[in-house]
Amino acid sequence: MSNVIRSYAATTKGGKLEPYEFDAGPLRDEQVEIAVEYCGLCHSDLSMLEDDWRISSYPFVPGHEAVGKIIAVGDRVKNLKIGQRVGLGWMSECCNGCQHCLSGDQHLCLSAEATIVGRHGGFADKVRCHWMWAIPLPDALDIRSAGPLFCGGITVFTPIVIYDVKPTDRVGVIGIGGLGHLAVQFLAKWGCEVTAFTSSDSKAEEARRMGAHHVVNSRDPAQLAKIAGSLDFILCTVNVSMPWGAIITCLARKGRLHFVGAVLEPVPVEVFPLMEAQNSISGSPIGGPVVTTKMLEFCARHEIQPITQHFKLTEVNDALDHLRAGKARYRVVLENDLG
Amino acid sequence: MSNVIRSYAATTKGGKLEPYEFDAGPLRDEQVEIAVEYCGLCHSDLSMLEDDWRISSYPFVPGHEAVGKIIAVGDRVKNLKIGQRVGLGWMSECCNGCQHCLSGDQHLCLSAEATIVGRHGGFADKVRCHWMWAIPLPDALDIRSAGPLFCGGITVFTPIVIYDVKPTDRVGVIGIGGLGHLAVQFLAKWGCEVTAFTSSDSKAEEARRMGAHHVVNSRDPAQLAKIAGSLDFILCTVNVSMPWGAIITCLARKGRLHFVGAVLEPVPVEVFPLMEAQNSISGSPIGGPVVTTKMLEFCARHEIQPITQHFKLTEVNDALDHLRAGKARYRVVLENDLG
Repeated sequence: MSNVIRSYAATTKGGKLEPYEFDAGPLRDEQVEIAVEYCGLCHSDLSMLEDDWRISSYPFVPGHEAVGKIIAVGDRVKNLKIGQRVGLGWMSECCNGCQHCLSGDQHLCLSAEATIVGRHGGFADKVRCHWMWAIPLPDALDIRSAGPLFCGGITVFTPIVIYDVKPTDRVGVIGIGGLGHLAVQFLAKWGCEVTAFTSSDSKAEEARRMGAHHVVNSRDPAQLAKIAGSLDFILCTVNVSMPWGAIITCLARKGRLHFVGAVLEPVPVEVFPLMEAQNSISGSPIGGPVVTTKMLEFCARHEIQPITQHFKLTEVNDALDHLRAGKARYRVVLENDLG
Repeated sequence: MSNVIRSYAATTKGGKLEPYEFDAGPLRDEQVEIAVEYCGLCHSDLSMLEDDWRISSYPFVPGHEAVGKIIAVGDRVKNLKIGQRVGLGWMSECCNGCQHCLSGDQHLCLSAEATIVGRHGGFADKVRCHWMWAIPLPDALDIRSAGPLFCGGITVFTPIVIYDVKPTDRVGVIGIGGLGHLAVQFLAKWGCEVTAFTSSDSKAEEARRMGAHHVVNSRDPAQLAKIAGSLDFILCTVNVSMPWGAIITCLARKGRLHFVGAVLEPVPVEVFPLMEAQNSISGSPIGGPVVTTKMLEFCARHEIQPITQHFKLTEVNDALDHLRAGKARYRVVLENDLG
């Protein structure tokens, strides 16, 4: 079996992606190798391509929402078999020894390996990971659109689980994009009353079709004032600055504003209103394998799926331009056509 | 029975307190009247005296940490009897009709009455409140020092309960003052490993005597860096700006920085580290009657008591100056000597 992987890589920061072959070496004992069928394009791929977080290395192969079949397994792989269809997200390995891994919080592992950090990702014919991070895909899910669940999906599903959002809660989702359009669907099926926050008129009607009961324009102070004190949980999926004071005011007492988008400017938090209303502000990254499995089951049960637009892997630069132009509705998926 | 109450009041913003008599009118059906024996002096009394929060009215009678005996009860008072010793804190009445009251979160009542807002407080020979907010004092507690438990104490005890701090947690307390010196005692007896944050060398040794296992200088970046990633819960009791970024970095994964001090400058929260470590930032005000009762039982069981300095009520202006000068070690209590 060949260890050569054919991929698309940028050789410089922000550069165009070009065909790139590399020798991945022997498969490690606990790794599986996945023949990539589809791979989602996440905003983090762009951030890494541009080295926004100063952790990129080149040649850089993006892609961390891969779906495909297992074609090889190492000697110490558990639970998985050749031929099984799985998904791979942001994380490709964790230590399984630190207190977080041992507590079931593998996504908080102190020495985790990420699929596109210091190694090559899923814009390729094959991608590898520790068996724990190759999550079996239920047959009921459409393999063409499932990829984005493994990063965008689990990122918004995890806080719903860990903060114990109740079906009786009133919740808000800020930003109807790759993450937000999944959050609205999850929370609507969770049983919540869902308010979508968007400044795009064209997305308002679509948000309602995803399950939102209300839509407010996040840039209109009057609309925010109208729902003051009403929301138990607000999930912020954008990474740009917002009128944070007014948004926090939308929280009910004991409410939580939770960030899953890496907002670059510090959020100025007024302490007095936080105290008065007993509110919390928090953030979280992706999620662990057990919660990912629960999410996939939840999607299958409720027919939730990412709304996707498709490009061939060989058209990856067009796909990147499409995402850069803000035209993704709501997630771009690449189909492996490397043959 | 006379409805005239003798008190000390300021007639103008920031003015000296002078003897002041007023007619409180007939006792309401659900109220009790307390003959004040002792009343703590809280920093909020100063803030209200100075109208810092723009909610003060004059004549202004401070005092919201009162301890004394019930001398009158309205017709619809429950659970309490004349002669019983009770404490009264920040809140003197709640609506008992809103969803928060009905859920047991009476301290979050949307139309609560506060002891010193729009009415007169405990720097007086008598003070009144709804029966629910007159909390019976266990016999084991020293009446001379118990007053500060009803505002300072419950303010720091409540978050330990509502956020389910575990005896196995590593915790921090920022600021060793009226609130912080109680928080250290509570958390030490709770079973936690306690780190006191103070910039005062003279308080370091005292903090250890209160139960702190470690003391760090909150203004020394090197000391903060040394405990990075280690604390599950940090309780901030100060109301001044701190090196927030470095303090948040002290949180362990899934850790919480909680504010009970009304920091006036907005806290700039960096979202990326919050997400990476799955941290929370929150605030809370005082606490409800049930948790107050639990706190008093906990104090009795573990011999926890406020460390107090005493003035006569007729020396109230000296007491205020003492607090203003930052000399309180750790809470000032006034003894009613109006005779």
